[in-house]
Amino acid sequence: MKYTIGIIGLGVMGQNLALNIESHGFPVVGFDIDAAKRKASAEKFGGKKMAVAQTLQEFADFLQSPKRIWLMVPAGAPVDTVIQDLKPLLNKGDLIIDGGNSHFLDTERRYKSLKKEGLLFIGTGVSGGEEGALRGPSLMPGGDPQAWPLVEAIFKAIAAKTEDGSACAEWLGEGGAGHFVKMVHNGIEYADMQMISEAYFLLHRLLGLTPQELSLIFNEWNQGELNSYLIEITSKILAKKDEETGKPMVDVILDRAGQKGTGKWAGQTALDLGIPAQTITEAVFARGMSALKDERTVAAKILSGPNVEFKEDAKTFTEEIRQALYAAKVCSYAQGFQLMRAANEEYGWQLNFGKIALIWRAGCIIRAQFLDKIKTAFEKNASLTNLLLDDYFKEVVAKNQQAWRRVVALASESGLPVPAFSSALTYYDGYRTERLPANLLQAQRDYFGAHTYERVDRPRGQFFHTQWL
Amino acid sequence: MKYTIGIIGLGVMGQNLALNIESHGFPVVGFDIDAAKRKASAEKFGGKKMAVAQTLQEFADFLQSPKRIWLMVPAGAPVDTVIQDLKPLLNKGDLIIDGGNSHFLDTERRYKSLKKEGLLFIGTGVSGGEEGALRGPSLMPGGDPQAWPLVEAIFKAIAAKTEDGSACAEWLGEGGAGHFVKMVHNGIEYADMQMISEAYFLLHRLLGLTPQELSLIFNEWNQGELNSYLIEITSKILAKKDEETGKPMVDVILDRAGQKGTGKWAGQTALDLGIPAQTITEAVFARGMSALKDERTVAAKILSGPNVEFKEDAKTFTEEIRQALYAAKVCSYAQGFQLMRAANEEYGWQLNFGKIALIWRAGCIIRAQFLDKIKTAFEKNASLTNLLLDDYFKEVVAKNQQAWRRVVALASESGLPVPAFSSALTYYDGYRTERLPANLLQAQRDYFGAHTYERVDRPRGQFFHTQWL
Repeated sequence: MKYTIGIIGLGVMGQNLALNIESHGFPVVGFDIDAAKRKASAEKFGGKKMAVAQTLQEFADFLQSPKRIWLMVPAGAPVDTVIQDLKPLLNKGDLIIDGGNSHFLDTERRYKSLKKEGLLFIGTGVSGGEEGALRGPSLMPGGDPQAWPLVEAIFKAIAAKTEDGSACAEWLGEGGAGHFVKMVHNGIEYADMQMISEAYFLLHRLLGLTPQELSLIFNEWNQGELNSYLIEITSKILAKKDEETGKPMVDVILDRAGQKGTGKWAGQTALDLGIPAQTITEAVFARGMSALKDERTVAAKILSGPNVEFKEDAKTFTEEIRQALYAAKVCSYAQGFQLMRAANEEYGWQLNFGKIALIWRAGCIIRAQFLDKIKTAFEKNASLTNLLLDDYFKEVVAKNQQAWRRVVALASESGLPVPAFSSALTYYDGYRTERLPANLLQAQRDYFGAHTYERVDRPRGQFFHTQWL
Repeated sequence: MKYTIGIIGLGVMGQNLALNIESHGFPVVGFDIDAAKRKASAEKFGGKKMAVAQTLQEFADFLQSPKRIWLMVPAGAPVDTVIQDLKPLLNKGDLIIDGGNSHFLDTERRYKSLKKEGLLFIGTGVSGGEEGALRGPSLMPGGDPQAWPLVEAIFKAIAAKTEDGSACAEWLGEGGAGHFVKMVHNGIEYADMQMISEAYFLLHRLLGLTPQELSLIFNEWNQGELNSYLIEITSKILAKKDEETGKPMVDVILDRAGQKGTGKWAGQTALDLGIPAQTITEAVFARGMSALKDERTVAAKILSGPNVEFKEDAKTFTEEIRQALYAAKVCSYAQGFQLMRAANEEYGWQLNFGKIALIWRAGCIIRAQFLDKIKTAFEKNASLTNLLLDDYFKEVVAKNQQAWRRVVALASESGLPVPAFSSALTYYDGYRTERLPANLLQAQRDYFGAHTYERVDRPRGQFFHTQWL
């Protein structure tokens, strides 16, 4: 028999994706260069409309024409290698899909180069982890618009569904649009995780709550406007005991966080596009700081902190942290959408921000109730400049800001670092400040480097220089 | 006659550098593809041991062997173009120096590729603006170690001198080392400028001081431990009146800052190396935020802020801001040196941090008295992990931290964004926190992505995974 689609890369993600696709009625053939993975997959795929090919040639022969080939291999050089190996086996009109976390500029490059050779290419974000791949991921495809009709039915069938039944898979745009959106998703995910960690940190350090008590608080928060996958699993994590020691799991885990690249790329791209996405970037740096565990252990004994007595009411303070978390979260999403808006102009995509919010509504790691509010905001005004200007979000921050400011002030005075809470606040205040002190900065640049400046009483784009000496 | 060295690129920087070199007894020939610049330079160079060549061939013929050619052309493609054009005119052992703000990875690439062809290459940072180029810049050379003896005498002659007569020019290391150090210099410069702007902003907005009053405060600060070029020119800028309107200059300059790339690269490189250089990066984002002038003008009318009455004593608050500025400044330098330390390991350089502090002591934009303290710190301990751990800096921050915390807290509660002050504080507190909440973050990553974690009760490098469900 011939198979509808093929998957290359049979790690857990690739395997699960294959099983998901087959369960929706599409026969799938898989391949992996690792014989052990082929063997393990063959066992899992048994009894289904699935096969594991033993060679790339066999894999290609098994596929219907036009061939649909989905790569689930590590981002970077491996993707280029597989594409090179595949090319001799493909015909014009065949399609390669890259489902890894590739840099969007790599996707742009591959799309353009394959297009010249008559091959179709899609770079798609796949979020939701192993579980999502199996039961319904959030899919963020971009690339060659001609390729979308070839896989739309498959993508929509296997994707997560929102409560009203919409599939979390929509065509995002040409070239690297899909991987760009996935990169921003991951940047927001970094910020979400960092903020939840900061809330946990303050509650733990200032109120001395146990993981069990904290679990209940996060569970309660998950019933309200903060309702989201990450808050939900935080509650579960805090309740989990280590089987070996009987201690709470969080207490035996080392405070040294890893990273895989997409968060970093979001920060670097924001710097390239000149978009202030500082909260996302601070979340990346917070992981870097956590990785300096040995240095911190030494520094903790040498560097002094403040000596303040904490005397807030526990219940009030807990609610203040909840409000701070929600307001700060809104700001990091606002930054992510501003970043997409800038890229949209830079790369000439036609991103639909409401659709993006919909795709993120289920299946992915940042899935949350409040994405409905984002979707609504962009449906009301497709060219909304900043999420903060939408009535709902404006009100959220207006209502929560007093608590948020108090939490940041208390953390600063207590010596507890909350870089994401704090940079989200300077973002908010920066954005609503009509006159920032960059006038002085421009004067300095003109003083030492003759970089010129614009004047408040002249049209934009006219540049002046002063003889300062 | 034959000339000792040649300069290509006769903009103001190139012209001034040429004049500086000649004034120290080294005959200089210049060239520019722009005939108007050649003409203007020829006039300026008249009566000196200088010439302007009319073609690149003539330029090459005018030079002593081995030829020393210093490029002062815009960073990026122009540098590669000039190198390509020069190659046919050069012999083995000739030297090309790139004095622009090139990315250090471009310098690495050019060094390696020219070495293969038997040509010597130096990539050097040049700081100090037009004035510095003429009267004594700070020079940060790196590249081919064999090239240094060919120009050491020239570099040391033309460089700025510290009070004890040391030249602000020292060989920094192989490949891109010099341009890396210049990039970090510029990152620190961004942070310095941003922090001074934040101090100005708070004094202006909360105490309602006029530019003239502010000028006196900065002048006073410049007599103490904050003594530096940027504080000095800030005082002068604040005293300056606009000739057209008679208003203070800072009041007629638009609050919209530009940027040229090196600060951005510093942030991006910090992200690549995993080093928390967030204050430098926040300073870059602050320029991005300032550039959104139109959006801010709209948002200022829509987004609400706090309603707090400011009732601090003006004199006390001014001194608190001064202390905050100094403590925050120490942190941004600490980040810059950590960044260089990480690059040193990554690229196998042998950076001497004491020498770097010396080079920055005079001539460059960030020149400041306190660089002596940094030099001393690294002389006492060449492998100092973090500037904050040095006795002097540890004490500075210990002494100033209460004021600093208060300033950040007050700014947060007053709705005034001070991203650099604030992120420097979360950097300090992060660095001295033995246990950060990254344990929760690792638990989340393991929960949804099976990313594994390390345990507090097991050796580093052993990774564990929990079945969370």
